[in-house]
Amino acid sequence: MLIKSGTIVRADSVFEADIAIQDGKVAGIIEGSLFPEAEQVVNAQGKYVLAGIIDPHNHMREPGIVEREDWITGTMAAAAGGVTMVLEHPVSVPPTTSAKAFLDKKALAESKSLVDFGLFGGNGTTSIEQIPELAALGAVAFKTFIWDYPDRQAEFAGITCTDDDALLEIFEAVAKTGLMQDLHAESKSVVEHYTKKLIAAGRRDPMVHEDSRPVLSEVEAVSRTVMFAMETGCRLNIPHISSGSATAVIKEAKKKGYHNITVETCPQYLFLTKERLAEIGPYGKINPPLRSKEEQDKLWEYLLDGTIDTIGSDHGPHLVVHKEKGWKDIFAAPAGSAAVETMLPVMLNGVNQGRLTLQMVTRLMSENVAKLYGLYPRKGVIQVGSDADLVIVDMNKEMTVDRRQAYTKEKESSRMFDGYHLVGLPVMTIVRGTVVMRDGQVIGKPGYGKFVPHLQAA
Amino acid sequence: MLIKSGTIVRADSVFEADIAIQDGKVAGIIEGSLFPEAEQVVNAQGKYVLAGIIDPHNHMREPGIVEREDWITGTMAAAAGGVTMVLEHPVSVPPTTSAKAFLDKKALAESKSLVDFGLFGGNGTTSIEQIPELAALGAVAFKTFIWDYPDRQAEFAGITCTDDDALLEIFEAVAKTGLMQDLHAESKSVVEHYTKKLIAAGRRDPMVHEDSRPVLSEVEAVSRTVMFAMETGCRLNIPHISSGSATAVIKEAKKKGYHNITVETCPQYLFLTKERLAEIGPYGKINPPLRSKEEQDKLWEYLLDGTIDTIGSDHGPHLVVHKEKGWKDIFAAPAGSAAVETMLPVMLNGVNQGRLTLQMVTRLMSENVAKLYGLYPRKGVIQVGSDADLVIVDMNKEMTVDRRQAYTKEKESSRMFDGYHLVGLPVMTIVRGTVVMRDGQVIGKPGYGKFVPHLQAA
Amino acid sequence: MLIKSGTIVRADSVFEADIAIQDGKVAGIIEGSLFPEAEQVVNAQGKYVLAGIIDPHNHMREPGIVEREDWITGTMAAAAGGVTMVLEHPVSVPPTTSAKAFLDKKALAESKSLVDFGLFGGNGTTSIEQIPELAALGAVAFKTFIWDYPDRQAEFAGITCTDDDALLEIFEAVAKTGLMQDLHAESKSVVEHYTKKLIAAGRRDPMVHEDSRPVLSEVEAVSRTVMFAMETGCRLNIPHISSGSATAVIKEAKKKGYHNITVETCPQYLFLTKERLAEIGPYGKINPPLRSKEEQDKLWEYLLDGTIDTIGSDHGPHLVVHKEKGWKDIFAAPAGSAAVETMLPVMLNGVNQGRLTLQMVTRLMSENVAKLYGLYPRKGVIQVGSDADLVIVDMNKEMTVDRRQAYTKEKESSRMFDGYHLVGLPVMTIVRGTVVMRDGQVIGKPGYGKFVPHLQAA
Amino acid sequence: MLIKSGTIVRADSVFEADIAIQDGKVAGIIEGSLFPEAEQVVNAQGKYVLAGIIDPHNHMREPGIVEREDWITGTMAAAAGGVTMVLEHPVSVPPTTSAKAFLDKKALAESKSLVDFGLFGGNGTTSIEQIPELAALGAVAFKTFIWDYPDRQAEFAGITCTDDDALLEIFEAVAKTGLMQDLHAESKSVVEHYTKKLIAAGRRDPMVHEDSRPVLSEVEAVSRTVMFAMETGCRLNIPHISSGSATAVIKEAKKKGYHNITVETCPQYLFLTKERLAEIGPYGKINPPLRSKEEQDKLWEYLLDGTIDTIGSDHGPHLVVHKEKGWKDIFAAPAGSAAVETMLPVMLNGVNQGRLTLQMVTRLMSENVAKLYGLYPRKGVIQVGSDADLVIVDMNKEMTVDRRQAYTKEKESSRMFDGYHLVGLPVMTIVRGTVVMRDGQVIGKPGYGKFVPHLQAA
Repeated sequence: MLIKSGTIVRADSVFEADIAIQDGKVAGIIEGSLFPEAEQVVNAQGKYVLAGIIDPHNHMREPGIVEREDWITGTMAAAAGGVTMVLEHPVSVPPTTSAKAFLDKKALAESKSLVDFGLFGGNGTTSIEQIPELAALGAVAFKTFIWDYPDRQAEFAGITCTDDDALLEIFEAVAKTGLMQDLHAESKSVVEHYTKKLIAAGRRDPMVHEDSRPVLSEVEAVSRTVMFAMETGCRLNIPHISSGSATAVIKEAKKKGYHNITVETCPQYLFLTKERLAEIGPYGKINPPLRSKEEQDKLWEYLLDGTIDTIGSDHGPHLVVHKEKGWKDIFAAPAGSAAVETMLPVMLNGVNQGRLTLQMVTRLMSENVAKLYGLYPRKGVIQVGSDADLVIVDMNKEMTVDRRQAYTKEKESSRMFDGYHLVGLPVMTIVRGTVVMRDGQVIGKPGYGKFVPHLQAA
Repeated sequence: MLIKSGTIVRADSVFEADIAIQDGKVAGIIEGSLFPEAEQVVNAQGKYVLAGIIDPHNHMREPGIVEREDWITGTMAAAAGGVTMVLEHPVSVPPTTSAKAFLDKKALAESKSLVDFGLFGGNGTTSIEQIPELAALGAVAFKTFIWDYPDRQAEFAGITCTDDDALLEIFEAVAKTGLMQDLHAESKSVVEHYTKKLIAAGRRDPMVHEDSRPVLSEVEAVSRTVMFAMETGCRLNIPHISSGSATAVIKEAKKKGYHNITVETCPQYLFLTKERLAEIGPYGKINPPLRSKEEQDKLWEYLLDGTIDTIGSDHGPHLVVHKEKGWKDIFAAPAGSAAVETMLPVMLNGVNQGRLTLQMVTRLMSENVAKLYGLYPRKGVIQVGSDADLVIVDMNKEMTVDRRQAYTKEKESSRMFDGYHLVGLPVMTIVRGTVVMRDGQVIGKPGYGKFVPHLQAA
Repeated sequence: MLIKSGTIVRADSVFEADIAIQDGKVAGIIEGSLFPEAEQVVNAQGKYVLAGIIDPHNHMREPGIVEREDWITGTMAAAAGGVTMVLEHPVSVPPTTSAKAFLDKKALAESKSLVDFGLFGGNGTTSIEQIPELAALGAVAFKTFIWDYPDRQAEFAGITCTDDDALLEIFEAVAKTGLMQDLHAESKSVVEHYTKKLIAAGRRDPMVHEDSRPVLSEVEAVSRTVMFAMETGCRLNIPHISSGSATAVIKEAKKKGYHNITVETCPQYLFLTKERLAEIGPYGKINPPLRSKEEQDKLWEYLLDGTIDTIGSDHGPHLVVHKEKGWKDIFAAPAGSAAVETMLPVMLNGVNQGRLTLQMVTRLMSENVAKLYGLYPRKGVIQVGSDADLVIVDMNKEMTVDRRQAYTKEKESSRMFDGYHLVGLPVMTIVRGTVVMRDGQVIGKPGYGKFVPHLQAA
Repeated sequence: MLIKSGTIVRADSVFEADIAIQDGKVAGIIEGSLFPEAEQVVNAQGKYVLAGIIDPHNHMREPGIVEREDWITGTMAAAAGGVTMVLEHPVSVPPTTSAKAFLDKKALAESKSLVDFGLFGGNGTTSIEQIPELAALGAVAFKTFIWDYPDRQAEFAGITCTDDDALLEIFEAVAKTGLMQDLHAESKSVVEHYTKKLIAAGRRDPMVHEDSRPVLSEVEAVSRTVMFAMETGCRLNIPHISSGSATAVIKEAKKKGYHNITVETCPQYLFLTKERLAEIGPYGKINPPLRSKEEQDKLWEYLLDGTIDTIGSDHGPHLVVHKEKGWKDIFAAPAGSAAVETMLPVMLNGVNQGRLTLQMVTRLMSENVAKLYGLYPRKGVIQVGSDADLVIVDMNKEMTVDRRQAYTKEKESSRMFDGYHLVGLPVMTIVRGTVVMRDGQVIGKPGYGKFVPHLQAA
């Protein structure tokens, strides 16, 4: 297979060349004249060829919560969005906290996924002993919540930790594996304090969602866990950072030389503010919440100065029946949105607006993800010998986001950017040399996607 | 009364003059020739006259724990040490968490104290509602512990808070009073984590005391509560800071303009390190613990650059029978030491060593204390109209600390500096114009000391 | 003499007391009731008593340029403005670069001055050898200009230095004396560059004065000379700083521990911007020039955070006949203004506006000046044993500045604040116990003022 | 031509692949199996393939000073050292300050050079008007000296500037071209000051060379010119930075967002200290001088944190007869050394010592150079379409530097690293697909090298 005449965009450089693909791998980057023939030729003239997007933050909901999403619908959405690999988080029924759960999920996903995938191990106060085993099985990283959900034990058993004593133990155990600990960083106590005050004041409308989980709750949680990472040497990644103020804490840690501490944000935090809830109510409820313009401006500052390492989707659809409760009582609605399908288009639109560059897109959404989660250079770069995971991008193609045309199972969960006009779209998604999406149509086959372990376990 | 020919040391200047005292107040600062006569003349030639020391951190143990200390023995020790006023913390039986407890303690102390005193109100998760009342009664500040002591409820009921939700509520309530919140800053969870590991490793000897409460526990607690103070606008004071690393957090807050955040250290942290426990075992156990030389060096750096605001004693004797348990099991011994008697001599010795100046001593141990706790300019400065609280200091006088000669009730608790040779001693303590200590002999009368309310309530 | 019932303002504290004065010195600070009688009693009820203002930056123009100012008119202006001591700079005919010139000027001033005075030594490329001698005679500091004035050698011979080689030599020589080097910090080359460009563009109007001497010229000169001070250990003071950007350089040096580097600004830079030249044309020409609002805002920031050490007047009148040339050609007009008379009133007005406090005024305009120039504690503080140099201030008294009523010789040079309505005025100036100004009327006697040497030479 | 089985090292990644070369350009980067045949095959198994080294700082001495070096001997030395392109500075007879001089030098070099080359334009006080013309001819950048050499006008006429007024004019003129200004950053006045003092103290031995040009002279010159670059927007590059202290100034500028300011150092500053002059006397004299270990340690810190952009050789041989004078009088010897031949081997040895990585070598010595001087992506990267300029490196090959075997004309000028044992050597140098050095033997042809203009002029 030959991708002809495209403009190749890498984190370090941009140039024109053909890409030869053989046995699912990049076999050559070559001047057009040199290679006259190939079985299959893709004309990429006038378009950009990037390494496939790797979504480091995805909730596929399967096994066990398939009414919201499953590995087929979820990875169709991924393929549609130019995503060639997803890293799936452990919130499922059962949660991915044991070897059995891990292997079961792996087998299930291998039979259904259209794109390649990696799996997080879940850890928490009650599942510290499973950490080495999950690492040995190829988990890309671990994920915990410093929270508890007494009413949602089916999904969350073993992946929560509300006690700093146990959290230090977890960090010490993960540090020994060399893997990274992801951690949802909001302070439960702080959130409860402000929620209680709002309820006492009679406020339960969508507009108070952010007030109930103020920036302080993220700053405190990040500060505390960063200190623990510094002390234990554990690699720590803060996913879906929402506020510039919390990102500043990570910047400080990096400046002191703590390169084991990293941070991810999501397109919704970069392009939407809390005012969005006035329009879409509970469909705009995510945790941490959308923030103010001021915090968003700071977030962009840290994106542009290199503090922020990766961009994830935090894809996690919810049922309409549950979301709808939030119009009257925002605290009654679940938090989450469908996001994997729009994550790349939203960022490409940002490129067209001059907010960032295509090279930054590939660094944040592919190269850095691959490096942090032990997939590089198999994934995350266009290079001879690397997997031929590619997304071809047409920076002039336009669409207006229409949630009714989403591939995700619960289309109403796709309201975040619904109605937004975007310029710059993925037009072809290639996984290991096979086209899985062409011109917006997903043509990949369930079960084609492969499990990719962390390179330490490979 | 006239104090003749002394060298007056103020935070801002040093000069020679006489001090006239009338009705317990400084009535004049005058050139010798101007005032030929006075009823009583004290010759201070060759000596330094400082505003009396105000100890912001004192546990008198009465009511309720008088086997360890009481208001007579405790304030005799204070007077002996050049201390003209103590600010008493709420750990007693009952704790000072209600108007009744406050007024009872006030009456008791008025009948017994040799020196002036102020009282902290105690607050915690269960005593938030009493905050306004205690402020109205003249409490100098509030004190809480982010810890719990299920077995010591007699002393600690109502002055603990282990939940950040409640802590924010406390801060909000205290912010409304304009007073300061003092807070013992060690993370319970972090201490438990390391203690558990040491016990699992078979270590219970005195030398592991510091390992069980590492610098991280102080840094985390300070960081978190500083964030809460920033958010709520509550004035926050961290007493007995032990590590330079934790002080750095406060320096950062001050640099950002948060002047409502202040910090106290104690002479023991400045002049002793954790190696002292090799000599005196459990008698060297205090919380937070004595630290390494490296942390101490940083602490000095922050003392000299003005980050540290005050010096307190954290005077709090314990029974020998309890302390002795710690030789075999350091975790079984209580934490605390008798310190009010030596706090000034130890600092004066530091002046003679060239570590700091007399002007810094008066700023840290008198002027700043008076300013932070609402006593200035009635206390804390030698100025016309201010109370004539003075300590006369002979910088050439020497002694070797001998715990057997201490005024405190449990003399064995005075082992911290026992055997140390000190140069520079207080030779006269004057409270409102009355000499209460002369040449080391306490001659004040129990019941002379007055309650001094915070100026807001005065 | 007794000053009764005033509110004494010191850098460190504010309180009410009487001040007894005997033999020209403060003999007592006392409670009213204690001292029933005195020969002379001044009622200061409702007013503030500050240590007399010391102007560290004054050009008396005598000997040799008496058409502009002389020691009688100049010190009458000082006394009128609450200034009890002036530090006179070396620009006169001859310049104060030799023992003879110094002693001649001293004798002259002793015969004419109404207030106390100190003298700068002038130094430059050609007068390095005289440095030790001038220090021995009691010069308060040295002053040089990194500029040359080939046409004005009468005033400037020996006090200029355009060569960094010589400047380093000067710094090394001054470092040995322990005195301070003052240095007019503008880069001649940079100013020439921009002046040339403006002239080439046909611009000579008053509004281009600042463009011709941009902030860069001050920043560069300050940066360079600060480096030299760091290297040689010479004490360096930058007088009349005009821009926040240049002050930032000094803040950085202080943060690195270089406490030998200090900085003065003037009221005109704090309260006027370059737009003032649209109103008063060449009468608003001073060097460095008035700056933009943005630079002024930063200057205030550095005033309030303690970076700026002192405030001087840079008093230096010029003849109308020379100033008037500047309407057509601003480069043809001399730079300078009469400023000593309004310096305190302008700052007091700032206090009434809430821009700074009275305590800051006394610190910046008296205490710090005395400390930096070796006069403290004889000058600069209200303290027993210090000279009774006082200014009594009525913070409610008002006036509209009227240049026609100025005491300075060339009244038209007083146009800077002409027409400004000021609230807060000095109502009595006392030099060593003698009233020299009462209610705006100067009643001091020429020749009363004394030469005060640097304490090293005293 | 095919380079088989090598490990390709790029700034961003390292991987194994073959490189196909056609018409002097990289035509493909391909998996081995894909391309069975080629006319010429180079086996690079076990070796590393880097983009050819570009020396941004080279003095070829021709025309006019050919007794020291010429374009044939100089570029033979370059080829021997793995250097595929040199950027030649304007110090020659005549200096490269006019279109004629530029074109003459270009023609001369085209007839003699073995490797590709770019040319600096020289500028100074007297040659400002030629700036646009030189830019139009393809000069890679400009170079000036803030110094004067009245006795060496043949070489230096028109490339010196001792007046900040003119320097600002130069910066403004260069800013308009978009090119970079290189500037030798030492303060003449500061150097004269310290030289004078040393001579007065009777010191002229080699060991005082550094004392005569202290770090201050570099810090001051860098600070000043950085300010001018900030003000004018001119791109400024400081070549051959010698001290960490001066590099810190550039780091500060970069942190403030001034990305137009860059800096180069040389291997001699990274691996030798001033003590080297005890061994090789005047042969170790370069300007700026070799520094102390302490400054060198800081320099490494700034190399590793990315502050330093490029590494150059500052190749510039001198005659033995002139150098020898320096044993008795170091001030009488000229400054400079032959360095192009050892620059890469010394850095490779550093890689083997673990001081830096091969990827850093290629970034600092090729990619960044190409980017800063307008040559990228034609030069500086292994990429399809780029010139096939390559150096193949054997990291296990060793040699002891022997100045007698140097290709440079004045072999005694190669004493800097003479006698050093180095591990890691270039074994093949390829310029546009043609091998010019193999196994240490230079086989390129004079006149093969091409002039490469700045891409703006291309």
